[in-house]
Amino acid sequence: MAGPGETDTDKAALVRRAVRLIAERGEAPTRAMLASATGIPRVRIETIFAEETDLLDAIVEDWYADDVEIMEQVMAADLPIRRKFYEFFARRFVALRAMYREDPAAFALYVDMGSTHFERVRGYIDLADHYLSELIAQAQAEGYFADLTITRALTLINQMVICYTSPQVMIILEERLAEDKLAAIIDTLFAGLSAADGGAGGVRGLHAA
Amino acid sequence: MAGPGETDTDKAALVRRAVRLIAERGEAPTRAMLASATGIPRVRIETIFAEETDLLDAIVEDWYADDVEIMEQVMAADLPIRRKFYEFFARRFVALRAMYREDPAAFALYVDMGSTHFERVRGYIDLADHYLSELIAQAQAEGYFADLTITRALTLINQMVICYTSPQVMIILEERLAEDKLAAIIDTLFAGLSAADGGAGGVRGLHAA
Repeated sequence: MAGPGETDTDKAALVRRAVRLIAERGEAPTRAMLASATGIPRVRIETIFAEETDLLDAIVEDWYADDVEIMEQVMAADLPIRRKFYEFFARRFVALRAMYREDPAAFALYVDMGSTHFERVRGYIDLADHYLSELIAQAQAEGYFADLTITRALTLINQMVICYTSPQVMIILEERLAEDKLAAIIDTLFAGLSAADGGAGGVRGLHAA
Repeated sequence: MAGPGETDTDKAALVRRAVRLIAERGEAPTRAMLASATGIPRVRIETIFAEETDLLDAIVEDWYADDVEIMEQVMAADLPIRRKFYEFFARRFVALRAMYREDPAAFALYVDMGSTHFERVRGYIDLADHYLSELIAQAQAEGYFADLTITRALTLINQMVICYTSPQVMIILEERLAEDKLAAIIDTLFAGLSAADGGAGGVRGLHAA
């Protein structure tokens, strides 16, 4: 029987193989598919992934591993808050775009699989929201995003930068996305986002000219 | 033989039937499908839609008809520029959301069909960009979006409001979208969008704390 270290190595290799299976088969891999693709006995694979959901969780964890690492690095970085905001989104955008460019068809399949198994993805989106909430609190301590609740600022910011965080939008719009545009959007947020009612939605009804 | 008026009526009825066929069949309808669904002779349908692409064009035109009407109404309206921006996006968002809510599954099929036949949709997106460029020019005449080219302002604004214009994002995020959030985004644009470099993307590289 393998020691824990060896099992970890096996597990990482199996997850990498399972990720390749997504591109090859065009669907979420099962333990049976993994057994047949690797020639490793099903019973051995089941000692590593006790349930099908454990395999799916491991694949999602693998997809988000870099993303989580980037977020942790940015949170720990010694940067002005505005630069931190930019790096928080830009570094993850660059990594996501690299994945897309490497294999757009496989990327579309991962995204599809993520939509189907959204409950496995949810935790990572919540983690990103958690970190972004911290950044918003830091920005507010310096006077930005005045008078907005953190929840409100979070939803508005998420909506205004969705082009740079959403894998679905990446598929539609990749050639229009660029780091300098993201920087302009972050600068716009810092210059303009607050609870002040500027009057855009003020009056209801159209008055014909 | 039908006069022009009668043919127009026939055509509108056939387009409505073709739109329903999308939901029923889950794919872009052909003239043959339309003939078999209506019992109208194929040769008659071909006098109305000379090519398959004419049928697709008519369906796309039908999908965008309300959108075009809304844009024309807003462009002609006597409103402060900020309110005009809001109405330009909000009215089209409300109409799009109504279509989504009426039948989310059929909506997803239309969107799929639009992606497949994107060259037919392109003209309507260009029209929206044309009108938005006019609004940007009006706003710049009043001092907003300082020193940005219209093209640059257009791409940044389109990206920041994509949640409220993209049918694809509607499918993912409908329950998070709301008119008051759109108003806050428009107010943020008017308060903060300019060519000024606020420093978000300024320095490259992360310095660990």
